[in-house]
Amino acid sequence: MADSKKMVEEITSMDVDFAKWYTDIVKKAELIEYTSVKGCMVIRPYGYAIWELIQKNLDARFKATGHENVCMPMFIPESLLEKEKDHVEGFAPEVAWVTHGGSEPLEERLCVRPTSETLFCEHYANIIHSHRDLPKLYNQWVSVVRWEKTTRPFLRSREFLWQEGHTIHATAEEAIEETERMLGVYADFCESDLAMPVVKGKKTESDKFAGAVSTYAIEALMHDGKALQAGTSHYFGDGFAKAFGIQYQSKENKLEYPHQTSWGVTTRLIGAIIMTHGDNNGLILPPAVAPIQAVIIPVAQHKPGVLDKANELKELLSKDFRVKLDDSDNSPGWKYSEYEMKGVPVRIEIGPRDIENNQCVLVTRHNREKTIVSLDNLQTEIAKKLEEVRVGLYNKALENRENKTYSCTTMDEIVTALEEKGDGFVKAMWCGEESCEDEVKEKTGVGSRCIPLNQEHISDVCVCCGKPAKHMVVWGKAY
Amino acid sequence: MADSKKMVEEITSMDVDFAKWYTDIVKKAELIEYTSVKGCMVIRPYGYAIWELIQKNLDARFKATGHENVCMPMFIPESLLEKEKDHVEGFAPEVAWVTHGGSEPLEERLCVRPTSETLFCEHYANIIHSHRDLPKLYNQWVSVVRWEKTTRPFLRSREFLWQEGHTIHATAEEAIEETERMLGVYADFCESDLAMPVVKGKKTESDKFAGAVSTYAIEALMHDGKALQAGTSHYFGDGFAKAFGIQYQSKENKLEYPHQTSWGVTTRLIGAIIMTHGDNNGLILPPAVAPIQAVIIPVAQHKPGVLDKANELKELLSKDFRVKLDDSDNSPGWKYSEYEMKGVPVRIEIGPRDIENNQCVLVTRHNREKTIVSLDNLQTEIAKKLEEVRVGLYNKALENRENKTYSCTTMDEIVTALEEKGDGFVKAMWCGEESCEDEVKEKTGVGSRCIPLNQEHISDVCVCCGKPAKHMVVWGKAY
Repeated sequence: MADSKKMVEEITSMDVDFAKWYTDIVKKAELIEYTSVKGCMVIRPYGYAIWELIQKNLDARFKATGHENVCMPMFIPESLLEKEKDHVEGFAPEVAWVTHGGSEPLEERLCVRPTSETLFCEHYANIIHSHRDLPKLYNQWVSVVRWEKTTRPFLRSREFLWQEGHTIHATAEEAIEETERMLGVYADFCESDLAMPVVKGKKTESDKFAGAVSTYAIEALMHDGKALQAGTSHYFGDGFAKAFGIQYQSKENKLEYPHQTSWGVTTRLIGAIIMTHGDNNGLILPPAVAPIQAVIIPVAQHKPGVLDKANELKELLSKDFRVKLDDSDNSPGWKYSEYEMKGVPVRIEIGPRDIENNQCVLVTRHNREKTIVSLDNLQTEIAKKLEEVRVGLYNKALENRENKTYSCTTMDEIVTALEEKGDGFVKAMWCGEESCEDEVKEKTGVGSRCIPLNQEHISDVCVCCGKPAKHMVVWGKAY
Repeated sequence: MADSKKMVEEITSMDVDFAKWYTDIVKKAELIEYTSVKGCMVIRPYGYAIWELIQKNLDARFKATGHENVCMPMFIPESLLEKEKDHVEGFAPEVAWVTHGGSEPLEERLCVRPTSETLFCEHYANIIHSHRDLPKLYNQWVSVVRWEKTTRPFLRSREFLWQEGHTIHATAEEAIEETERMLGVYADFCESDLAMPVVKGKKTESDKFAGAVSTYAIEALMHDGKALQAGTSHYFGDGFAKAFGIQYQSKENKLEYPHQTSWGVTTRLIGAIIMTHGDNNGLILPPAVAPIQAVIIPVAQHKPGVLDKANELKELLSKDFRVKLDDSDNSPGWKYSEYEMKGVPVRIEIGPRDIENNQCVLVTRHNREKTIVSLDNLQTEIAKKLEEVRVGLYNKALENRENKTYSCTTMDEIVTALEEKGDGFVKAMWCGEESCEDEVKEKTGVGSRCIPLNQEHISDVCVCCGKPAKHMVVWGKAY
């Protein structure tokens, strides 16, 4: 018990300092380690295993919707980056430049990809000639680099892992449908697999991706009431096609410009999981992406038969679940704290008395509820508990979001709500003018997160200028 | 048939120009496409799917031997790269240097990793303190950059995909055992899954990895008689630990330096598959890494019932195999050529008469053998055929290697063998002196590939100087 207490005390309480609580968890759950490369991190085995499970679940969804994986170079020649005007303006200030190969200066400097639209466009121009070559539905799992000033593990780093989907279609309709489909895939993944409710919406003009006609996003609310953009999906129209000279011969034998999309999620999702579900005992992982779904902790393991039984259970359960047996010589109390810290959804305790009674104790991480179950149908019981954790996490997160969502009709109401109830999502109407968007941000501290696809009617007029409203916007402070 | 002929004629014959034949295949089987980034390529869906299968099969082997995946930054600060003297000398001349982030010059320039020993060492120094922290058995799947002058798709490119295993152990014995174990894992993967026989051996001193105590490699012989290094495994001793100040408290409470290894294979394996198995009709893929293991080609598909039956077979077979049904309106002849080009191991032809007789035709890619089989046990028949292809490919490659391996006792014999029989492996004895190694290369054109672990006795004396021989060396011209 002494051990157990000691470990728990090592984490800063989230109520005292949320930011410190967050970095304590990423370090102590051994998700990352810092390096001498500023803003870049080592993703350690436990953190990388979470990412591998995110990849596996998303990749299956991408393949089920007809996408193929490819791999583009990590470098973009400066002249290629410059081909689309808005795009280069958005990204050039934050790229890393390679200027030398060995001891020789390069003829043209290369940037390390911050995103790969330009490389995909160059490739499309090479391989697309006829309507028969369309659509191309591509994705790649790589890392990208953006030279950020301030960085935080998973949330904002100079290098991060992501997937970038890139597709090209004969018509605008098809491309828009794709943009929306992939937003839906992301939302479903976040809600089903990560147990994290999200708002699907469109970004305002000022918040669009550099070069996009429209940008869609999913926005999640973290435990501290700040918003996190968890994924984006962009519709490009034919702007890139025109800039890169991509044309195809239509069925009617005309030369046409195709329409493009791109969409991405990153290792930031791991940060979202931590800040949506974690508590003062550490991480809490949704079962779909938990490297260990159930940990078996033998009690009084030196007594005859205990380890044999624990090993038997491990073998049995490993067919259906990711299971670990911890038979190290640490105390059960130490182990309880350790796997709570690591966010393992279900703990299985088994000791001599349990074995006598053909039972074991199951403890669910999110609510620490204990259940005694028979060993006869343990697989079913574990499956049930994992589903309980998933649903429990989702409901808790949704409740948090609902408690922290404020419908406001005036600027004063926004200020008061945030002051009295703390950071959260603000729902308020907007006329569509950038000047009002800026003024809301300046006067209340919350910026527009998105224009939700599910619109609600809060009032008739813009919360800022009082002119007729065009949209209900969700506002918030962003990570 | 006209279509079919046309496609086949598009590939240069390997007997006319092996290098051209190779690049024809990588382009026409749609494995890669060139880019405006010199020496870097797009790996297209079909090529990337092969890499994904290589990854999947190898990753399972790594995990089964206790390794965990991690992810290190892609950048290495110059001062970190310089910490181990031999290592920096080996790599500094061929790295890409990042000198600017956005518009600001960096305080210290960063290289894009050519390999990650230095990053792993920095990390080990942070996380290893006690003998309880050892061993660490890590691996990462990433891309690396080496600024090569001349490049060829898959075989030598400025950026390539690979895995790099990095492990650290309490004792030299454990580390050496690991080095040899992973060489064995590579050899088994190449021989079982890629159907490619390899020679396991040790590199000579002059050919070691920069910073290694010893380097092991697997060497394969390509169809044209040139050697290809297919994978390497390095033992570092405690040199890196000393350079990076990595120490652990032993059980006896002493501070000790741990011992390290690293090992890697790359997308070069795809080049090896092409040049080991391919023929004048295109690629031939070993079933374990074939994105399509069997392609169903309906004959007279407009006739009633043909497409229904083809779809039924596809559904049935998809449970156990990677299957594609091509029901496009191209002619069967065109399709035969197309999937031969793409190296699909088994073709399934089904037409009205076959359906009447409850049968189909199976054609194996490597020998074009046709077999009529009953539809009643098609799964079993396909599994049998895939195994036939695997064994057939292995035996063909082994036969090629045996026909092109020459045991020689004098320099003259080497020259004559190569002249008369063409490029290949030369087995000849060596005294161990670098001067003799150089002289053999200079006078015969073949360099030492490795000192095979399975030694044979060709003669008592060095093929070059006539002094007592220490090792049998396999010599060859290398890719």
